Amino acid sequence: MIRSTTALYLTFLASFLSIGYALFAAYYVLSKQDGNERMREIAKAIQEGAYAFLSREYKSIAIVAVIVFAILWALGAKSEHFGLLTALGYLTGAVLSGLAGYIGMVVAVKTNVKTAEMAKNGLAKALNLAFRGGSVTGFLVTGFGLLAIAGFYYISVYIFKQPVEHTIKALIGLAFGTSLISVFARLGGGIYTKAADVGADLVGKVEAGIPEDDPRNPAVIADNVGDNVGDCAGMAADVFETFTVTTVASMVLGHTLFDKAGTVGIAAMFPLLIGAIASVSAIIGTFFVKLGKSNNIMGAFYKGMVATAIIALVIIYFASKKFFAGGVNYSWGVVTPNSIFLSAVIGMAITALLMFITEYYTSYEYPPVKSIAKSSVTGHATNIIQGMAVMLKAPAAPAIVIALGIFFSYKLAGLYGIAIAAASMLSLTGMVISIDSYGPITDNAGGIAEMAELDESVRAVTDPLDAVGNTTKAVTKGFAIGSAALAALVLFAEYTRAIGAGAHSFDLSNHLVLVGLLFGGLLPFYFGAMSMEAVGVAGGMMVEEVRRQFKTIKGILEGKAKPDYASCVDIVTRESLKKMIAPGLIPVLGPIIAYILFGKIALGALSIGSIITGFFLAVAMTSGGGAWDNAKKYIEDGNYGGKGSEAHKAAVTGDTVGDPLKDTAGPAINPMIKIINIIAILIVLTNL
Amino acid sequence: MIRSTTALYLTFLASFLSIGYALFAAYYVLSKQDGNERMREIAKAIQEGAYAFLSREYKSIAIVAVIVFAILWALGAKSEHFGLLTALGYLTGAVLSGLAGYIGMVVAVKTNVKTAEMAKNGLAKALNLAFRGGSVTGFLVTGFGLLAIAGFYYISVYIFKQPVEHTIKALIGLAFGTSLISVFARLGGGIYTKAADVGADLVGKVEAGIPEDDPRNPAVIADNVGDNVGDCAGMAADVFETFTVTTVASMVLGHTLFDKAGTVGIAAMFPLLIGAIASVSAIIGTFFVKLGKSNNIMGAFYKGMVATAIIALVIIYFASKKFFAGGVNYSWGVVTPNSIFLSAVIGMAITALLMFITEYYTSYEYPPVKSIAKSSVTGHATNIIQGMAVMLKAPAAPAIVIALGIFFSYKLAGLYGIAIAAASMLSLTGMVISIDSYGPITDNAGGIAEMAELDESVRAVTDPLDAVGNTTKAVTKGFAIGSAALAALVLFAEYTRAIGAGAHSFDLSNHLVLVGLLFGGLLPFYFGAMSMEAVGVAGGMMVEEVRRQFKTIKGILEGKAKPDYASCVDIVTRESLKKMIAPGLIPVLGPIIAYILFGKIALGALSIGSIITGFFLAVAMTSGGGAWDNAKKYIEDGNYGGKGSEAHKAAVTGDTVGDPLKDTAGPAINPMIKIINIIAILIVLTNL
Repeated sequence: MIRSTTALYLTFLASFLSIGYALFAAYYVLSKQDGNERMREIAKAIQEGAYAFLSREYKSIAIVAVIVFAILWALGAKSEHFGLLTALGYLTGAVLSGLAGYIGMVVAVKTNVKTAEMAKNGLAKALNLAFRGGSVTGFLVTGFGLLAIAGFYYISVYIFKQPVEHTIKALIGLAFGTSLISVFARLGGGIYTKAADVGADLVGKVEAGIPEDDPRNPAVIADNVGDNVGDCAGMAADVFETFTVTTVASMVLGHTLFDKAGTVGIAAMFPLLIGAIASVSAIIGTFFVKLGKSNNIMGAFYKGMVATAIIALVIIYFASKKFFAGGVNYSWGVVTPNSIFLSAVIGMAITALLMFITEYYTSYEYPPVKSIAKSSVTGHATNIIQGMAVMLKAPAAPAIVIALGIFFSYKLAGLYGIAIAAASMLSLTGMVISIDSYGPITDNAGGIAEMAELDESVRAVTDPLDAVGNTTKAVTKGFAIGSAALAALVLFAEYTRAIGAGAHSFDLSNHLVLVGLLFGGLLPFYFGAMSMEAVGVAGGMMVEEVRRQFKTIKGILEGKAKPDYASCVDIVTRESLKKMIAPGLIPVLGPIIAYILFGKIALGALSIGSIITGFFLAVAMTSGGGAWDNAKKYIEDGNYGGKGSEAHKAAVTGDTVGDPLKDTAGPAINPMIKIINIIAILIVLTNL
Repeated sequence: MIRSTTALYLTFLASFLSIGYALFAAYYVLSKQDGNERMREIAKAIQEGAYAFLSREYKSIAIVAVIVFAILWALGAKSEHFGLLTALGYLTGAVLSGLAGYIGMVVAVKTNVKTAEMAKNGLAKALNLAFRGGSVTGFLVTGFGLLAIAGFYYISVYIFKQPVEHTIKALIGLAFGTSLISVFARLGGGIYTKAADVGADLVGKVEAGIPEDDPRNPAVIADNVGDNVGDCAGMAADVFETFTVTTVASMVLGHTLFDKAGTVGIAAMFPLLIGAIASVSAIIGTFFVKLGKSNNIMGAFYKGMVATAIIALVIIYFASKKFFAGGVNYSWGVVTPNSIFLSAVIGMAITALLMFITEYYTSYEYPPVKSIAKSSVTGHATNIIQGMAVMLKAPAAPAIVIALGIFFSYKLAGLYGIAIAAASMLSLTGMVISIDSYGPITDNAGGIAEMAELDESVRAVTDPLDAVGNTTKAVTKGFAIGSAALAALVLFAEYTRAIGAGAHSFDLSNHLVLVGLLFGGLLPFYFGAMSMEAVGVAGGMMVEEVRRQFKTIKGILEGKAKPDYASCVDIVTRESLKKMIAPGLIPVLGPIIAYILFGKIALGALSIGSIITGFFLAVAMTSGGGAWDNAKKYIEDGNYGGKGSEAHKAAVTGDTVGDPLKDTAGPAINPMIKIINIIAILIVLTNL
């Protein structure tokens, strides 16, 4: 008990440090220059669009959120695991998730114009500013995540004197809150950003032949807003969810595996402590992000990540020695400090390998992307065929890495080893989000520079910054979906325990398990299909609107008349919010229906079925989309005829196809499979 | 014992009737006219290409087959389940599979020109001839399938006096033989047909702007050969495998569930009897395939199928009453005649529903295909995005149908109910292949008419016949993959028994099960990727060869010089045979490696993992490909601007992308997942 309380206090400390660092970074960034009037005007349009979207999105989500709050509260009459406590946990998760996304986005849409201005002073300074801006989101996510869990636990146990069992279970409600926000944020933001992108590209770039980010394009503001609401706010909610759910799942498992009734020991608290250690390590790590003499931007980020990982592992090593001194008893033996530490090393190794594999499949330094670029020479169709081949190949290596990770961490410390590995995978969260949020900032900075007709030298700084953003985005998604697979498995282990299942319950030769696996397997497929379709339909409406403006507004293409940016923003806002609801309900209603029809066993199997097809689909989609994107960039760099060649046209088709895969459907599968697993646990806790 | 022997004799009778019918149909077809000299010349070129490919393909497969034969024989020293008997069973399956494909293809490449000639006499007569030609393959497949199983059993038990246990196990070897041929036939034929198609279309149609099947196109003969080696020989091997493996799996399960040591009762023989009943019903059914007054070709086929289904069900009803009189004891109760019959009805209902669903997703009468056609208006990329959405949606309904089928047939008669449903699903095999083989015949007939410059009126007959061929091809694949899922599950049930697994062995909360599921899940993805890539690379070589001929052979495009057809045929033959080996080894080596690394439990989970992702991928690929194909046809029928419009160009891209999905990767996944499951069973039977 003493040790677990110490861990709790240390977590508070780490969360305050993280939030403090985020506030400091925000202060630093916001003190910089905004640039000339034209730049400020453009930035303001982007900000307004982004605020408008997010406030309307949150209003839509709030309706769902309030209904769920009421249900969770009301269920308290049926089961001790529900009631106000769980409902409040849920609300805490939901609100902090929304808040992290919102603040991060606010800072991002203010940093973009400042980065464009700073770009006049060279690459190193612009990189530094954009990265600091991104780190606001990064450290808010880890800080809020730690605060939510530790704070909720503390208030529940120490102030309201609730039993620890209920408090631990109520944390699942907290995780559910973050998941629910996350799936809608990923869907809404993802549909928005890609519909705007498709509209801007297909009519502007392809039909009218004007360059990217050209102010004559009516969809250009919507496109820039999209980067922020999708890649910044949506991504933040997604990784916040990954961080919180994984930590909570590991804690709950540690509690069920080791704790005596009414107590919470170090096994339950250690996953939280790993998060705390990691977030402090990441703060130190940010100071290693420095552009070297070679001007290698990705290298600067890698330095930061490696530093964070090494610092975190060293601290975890000593923490395991200290907190697990003497070992902890487990049904099949004793978990030693070394086995804990080595499980954490495995988790970190999984992260590193997943990042490397993702880079291999999505960077144009390597054969997969080059093969797509080469196949573009023979046309649109061969580009797509080769891209699909790369897409289908991409999940193999990550699956092997995760399978081996499961195998070895289980050997070290049983199920708890898997939980520790999952928690340790998330050590780099703060760093990963900082780098990822940097992406939309530099993307926007380039857009603003283009629209404000700044000097060529500015784009010469923002372009390489932006190009790296594509890789970091792909890497984040590989990281998120990989940890999602592990987290979902930990949740499933908890489900097994919650239904009091005997070891034989989920036997594959049980027909109900097969039924459940099939039902679970279809959910990510159908969910992915609906997300793709939503982008297609909303994008089609943008295409029509842009065409309409080109036709009806006289002088628009000569730059004499101003396009109606607001109507584009409005259409894509309305459509993406309308179209996020149906797919968002799939992971909520799917498990409920399966439970009513086929019962608990089929429901458990459904969870696993969704993890399997979901994992493969998500990795395929995000890697495939990234590969298509960079194949286009590779051609634009002057290969196979360069810009304007037939190969380039084919590559643009591939890029457009990859967009909804990598930025809408693929990343939304991550929270989706966790919602399924959490709903499954909540269902059995109802005792209905 | 008496009842089971009666069933065996009835099966012999049915197999002789089927083979007799096939020979009669072949005689009837071959007696028809060949057409003029030009037509005969073209037909001869196609025949030579097809024979050349098949003999080279069989030589390649023979090397693998002989090695496997030796291994199976040699393993006899280690385990009583192997040795000469199993090796011979394996050889029987392999040889008969090859033979059915070969004879069917020989008849098809002779019927094509006769159908072109007959088309001068109108639609009804041409349809009848093409269908009779197709039914040679159809009834050889069922006839040989029944003969292989019944004959092998009879000779082993009654002539060589082998114990029934060993004979039944040796049947798994027989099934393995058919699977091995099938995966290579699907891969080799599939890569061939689509590489030739891509080459012919991309350079001929798109670049040179000459029509389909134009004699000036150097790849035109290769393209027509491809229809036969892929859609006829490859498909025949595939469905032969489906039929044999499902029947054997059901028999083996019936034996393990019900029989006392040393005996074989009716439960083991009844699945075979269902096959026998179905093949005789199908003979009667063929006489119902008649073009009505409305000239609805698909309607004519449906009449035949409905007649077959009704006749088969009536006979199965009386057969269950007769053979299961008094019921059969099962560990949890008694299996009654009614529960057997109703399980068979469920199997038939699954087939009907899968056919309807496939038609819904692939015919341009329904929204999915229309939505792809509509999205073609905004370009290549939106066509692909919408096509992918349709593709990802397509497996949902089939998965639900199969899950419900499993649920209800299990309720009726336990695992044996699932086996009966699977066997009953195959009742329509003879009919389905007849209709499917008809596809390449009419496709070729159209090609010959075009190349021989026959009158427009001939194409007016062959074109509608050909269009229906697209739907029937898609329907066959839906049928094959659906039954594959059930058959693979039955095989898994047998695997569970073979390793003497307790009910707890495959628990989803066992980490080895998760490891196995992940490994199994990745195999179909990787297999699909390699198949797609093979088509891409081989197709690229065809593109280069056709371009080379257009450039170096003077007067080729003016029709003054003859293209070098043979070099195209040679290139695509060589490439497809080279590229089929690596993916073909995945399902053989994957399970062996997993077993060595992680043992029996992970291996069993690997089987299930491959069934799940394999099922979803295969349905998605075959349905998606069919939908893209018919979206193009819908536009060619005059919608959205018709032929030559921008929408049409986008639809051609979609069609080309769909080709390797629906004709190479998708259908090859069907035998692939069964090989994995059979290898798994064989591994545990080795006792190593």
